[in-house]
Amino acid sequence: MTTSAPAVVLLSGGLDSATALAVAQREGFDCHALTLAYGQRHTIEIEAAQRVAQAQQVRDHRILTLDLRAFGGSALTADVPVPTDRTLNEMSAAIPITYVPARNTVFLALALGWAEVLGAFDIFVGVNAVDYSGYPDCRPEFIACFEQLANLATKAGVEGRGRFRIHAPLIHLTKAEIIRLGTNLGVDYRLTHSCYDPARDGSACGRCDSCVLRHAGFVSAGLPDPTRYQHSPA
Amino acid sequence: MTTSAPAVVLLSGGLDSATALAVAQREGFDCHALTLAYGQRHTIEIEAAQRVAQAQQVRDHRILTLDLRAFGGSALTADVPVPTDRTLNEMSAAIPITYVPARNTVFLALALGWAEVLGAFDIFVGVNAVDYSGYPDCRPEFIACFEQLANLATKAGVEGRGRFRIHAPLIHLTKAEIIRLGTNLGVDYRLTHSCYDPARDGSACGRCDSCVLRHAGFVSAGLPDPTRYQHSPA
Repeated sequence: MTTSAPAVVLLSGGLDSATALAVAQREGFDCHALTLAYGQRHTIEIEAAQRVAQAQQVRDHRILTLDLRAFGGSALTADVPVPTDRTLNEMSAAIPITYVPARNTVFLALALGWAEVLGAFDIFVGVNAVDYSGYPDCRPEFIACFEQLANLATKAGVEGRGRFRIHAPLIHLTKAEIIRLGTNLGVDYRLTHSCYDPARDGSACGRCDSCVLRHAGFVSAGLPDPTRYQHSPA
Repeated sequence: MTTSAPAVVLLSGGLDSATALAVAQREGFDCHALTLAYGQRHTIEIEAAQRVAQAQQVRDHRILTLDLRAFGGSALTADVPVPTDRTLNEMSAAIPITYVPARNTVFLALALGWAEVLGAFDIFVGVNAVDYSGYPDCRPEFIACFEQLANLATKAGVEGRGRFRIHAPLIHLTKAEIIRLGTNLGVDYRLTHSCYDPARDGSACGRCDSCVLRHAGFVSAGLPDPTRYQHSPA
């Protein structure tokens, strides 16, 4: 019997994190998925994370509630309208209003805490710096700095029992490349959810930045988009 | 009318963070206190934080619930006994079992999120590397690395609207020096709480590491210890 090394994988229920999980599994890690319920307007993302965790047969899946609405400051956590029908160029021109302050710092910190309890030194996160470069905490320099911090912050790092690594396997891939990679690894994208403003039945709006980006990725990858949209994305 | 700069202050309800808050106020910051309710066995700490926030007249006080018990791994969050009657030497010999994995990383990340929403660039944390050096995330190199991360992680940092600073004004002080400093700044230490294992009426056990360290600090500072103890600390 071989024992594979444990890893913590941040799993949002979106397309990217499902792919990052598949990469971690292909690399032989025993995956522990962590989903943060951070005051989203919809529980649909959490349900998608549960479906993905089950389909990809993770070792364990924890859902931690964290009400970032207490701070306000983002369309994803506060009650302000989500922008619609923007082109990819318009999206990449600025940091999106859907930016959640310090989100990946908070999420990676929580993943680090669980990793230390598990005796894991590997954390996977599906951040991407290419298609949607407006988020400062999706850049390689941020990930590298967090990795340095992880090794300073923890008993396990300080005692030299191992060295923490933050894996961001999608960071330099386009959305189309991510979709091709995940498809090759058997990810079922029907289970994932990207839309910022879904209908009650869970179908995607087709007009928010996330829907536009997702659909363009499938088109560019030359693969059928299995997403149910209310409005067909441009 | 002068407008003072906003700051976020991590406020646990303990002696150190009440002192850090007083330092931030002396430096002229408009203080927004953040308390994390992280699955402690006692709500007494939260009540202490509320008393301190009120007595020191902060601008705003938010209490964010974060159930770190989901991960297990510490006497402060899991249901294992707290060590008692240890000497200061015994305490400093190892990382304490009351260590909470990645705690300060998580807390500073959340403080950063709120700071960004507030437009604040200053975060105060009452960590201390002298008396109780077992916590890796209380060391100056950890604080410096987090400051670097904060400026990479955020829209405000990246856009150059300001530079985040993590203030750890107590980091090089002994417990006695902290108590003298806070006393000079008018901190009412009766309102603060340190004990890991308090009685139902809120009185301190007098035997856990935190009680022993607190009491030794008052003795060493030559100041009366206003704490109500069940057992007089050694």
